[in-house]
Amino acid sequence: MSAVSQADARRPIGVFDSGVGGLTVLDAIHRALPWEDLVYLGDTARVPYGTKSADSVARYARQAALALVRRNVKALVIACNTASAVALDVLRESYPSLPILGVIDPGAEASCRASRSGRIGVIGTEGTIQGGAYQRAIQRLRPDAIVTGQACSLFVALAEEGWTDGELLEQVLRRYLAPLSSGNQPRIDCLVLGCTHFPVLKSAIANVVGDDVCLVDSAATTAAALYQQLDQLGELHPERERTGAIDYLVTDGPDRFARVAGTFFSRAVDRSNVELIDIPQLA
Amino acid sequence: MSAVSQADARRPIGVFDSGVGGLTVLDAIHRALPWEDLVYLGDTARVPYGTKSADSVARYARQAALALVRRNVKALVIACNTASAVALDVLRESYPSLPILGVIDPGAEASCRASRSGRIGVIGTEGTIQGGAYQRAIQRLRPDAIVTGQACSLFVALAEEGWTDGELLEQVLRRYLAPLSSGNQPRIDCLVLGCTHFPVLKSAIANVVGDDVCLVDSAATTAAALYQQLDQLGELHPERERTGAIDYLVTDGPDRFARVAGTFFSRAVDRSNVELIDIPQLA
Repeated sequence: MSAVSQADARRPIGVFDSGVGGLTVLDAIHRALPWEDLVYLGDTARVPYGTKSADSVARYARQAALALVRRNVKALVIACNTASAVALDVLRESYPSLPILGVIDPGAEASCRASRSGRIGVIGTEGTIQGGAYQRAIQRLRPDAIVTGQACSLFVALAEEGWTDGELLEQVLRRYLAPLSSGNQPRIDCLVLGCTHFPVLKSAIANVVGDDVCLVDSAATTAAALYQQLDQLGELHPERERTGAIDYLVTDGPDRFARVAGTFFSRAVDRSNVELIDIPQLA
Repeated sequence: MSAVSQADARRPIGVFDSGVGGLTVLDAIHRALPWEDLVYLGDTARVPYGTKSADSVARYARQAALALVRRNVKALVIACNTASAVALDVLRESYPSLPILGVIDPGAEASCRASRSGRIGVIGTEGTIQGGAYQRAIQRLRPDAIVTGQACSLFVALAEEGWTDGELLEQVLRRYLAPLSSGNQPRIDCLVLGCTHFPVLKSAIANVVGDDVCLVDSAATTAAALYQQLDQLGELHPERERTGAIDYLVTDGPDRFARVAGTFFSRAVDRSNVELIDIPQLA
């Protein structure tokens, strides 16, 4: 294959999520590759994915990928755990020459590196946990691992509501997390935050599970994997001193998106950079 | 106009909601008119509506109404508060000869009857409260009323998770409901449960706001208004001894729907009565 042209390497990176939660992944990518232009697509018309069927989520993901491919992205990151679990293989088949990363494998790798005992907990949405993708990814990497999954359905609502600390929040978290540290089984030493919303609850979760449990989220690991892959392909943007632009596409409610974004992203999201796109045009 | 034929009066009643919450309204309709056949459409592919834009919700409601009209319904009930607020007038324009009821006006009427002081609280989703439809409907009926709205974004997730009682739930409710009974203003004496999910939290809400606050939900009032309207039109089913059939249409996840339904409906929902329909065909 011929070398990548500089023009190709200047193309943006596409990041796709069901809504605002994927901004935690966008944040990590922007920190790791600040010079890159990014296009974020939040499917806010159909959020949340965590309680939707695998078929629907896969269809939504195909439509979103098409919208980003039309924006000429040089790589695609599926920031949503639920969509990563059900749509990664399908999208790779559809776009064989496009680097496509999900968040499940990077999160699984990070947890296998972080855990000493091999007793790993995974928390996520109903869809992510029931689908078992993290559990399988971890056991592929470390067959002796004992993985305990726990669906934490309220956490997304808590995060979007901005309830990120306080005693009441910790009581709610404790009710969900208790099964992971019950007396009958050896304690986990690593907990995967298997949903993009959960990093904003990280310090409260740490208070509940204790300092001896390492918390892993996929955002930083996914950003590192993206960096490595683009570097190997020679597709990193040639100018490293610049600060990349970030464009936002949403399928509903740009005002709400810009407002809620602050909880998930360290940079303010300017409403004027948020473009409303139409779902039917993606089909 | 000629009298309604018996064949017309045997047609089913359509009930539309964003997901499972409207089953509380279906329940009230089935209790008030047990002989009627009912078709319930839950737009589970796009639930929740409460955080979506008015434009999107109106479009979804038009598609859902079309799906039910194609099922030859003799009346349409919009069980979802958010959809009632933004789509009732539009749907009445689209189907001028079809009786169409929302839940906002019946709920507003019930609260005006129940309140002595005219100090009325309304709780609902972000969309319902920010849109202000209940506040306007109450003040149309009772211009001296002082209406306080409060968005309770976590309540839907709590209800769907089946957290319907206990001390921890009451603490969460208290945090939301405190502004409605703060010391600076005279207490409300009536609270409208302006979201179909909230009736399942009714006894916990009653514990928090106190026995002297009357809780109003739109379900029973909407069912009574439907009865009255069909009776006036001569469209009540002619056989009152029968038990009507209930069919369920969902746009995603029929298994989850049948499972979660039990929290919201007094009758078990048989999975085999739940039909998955395709959204694109509604357009």
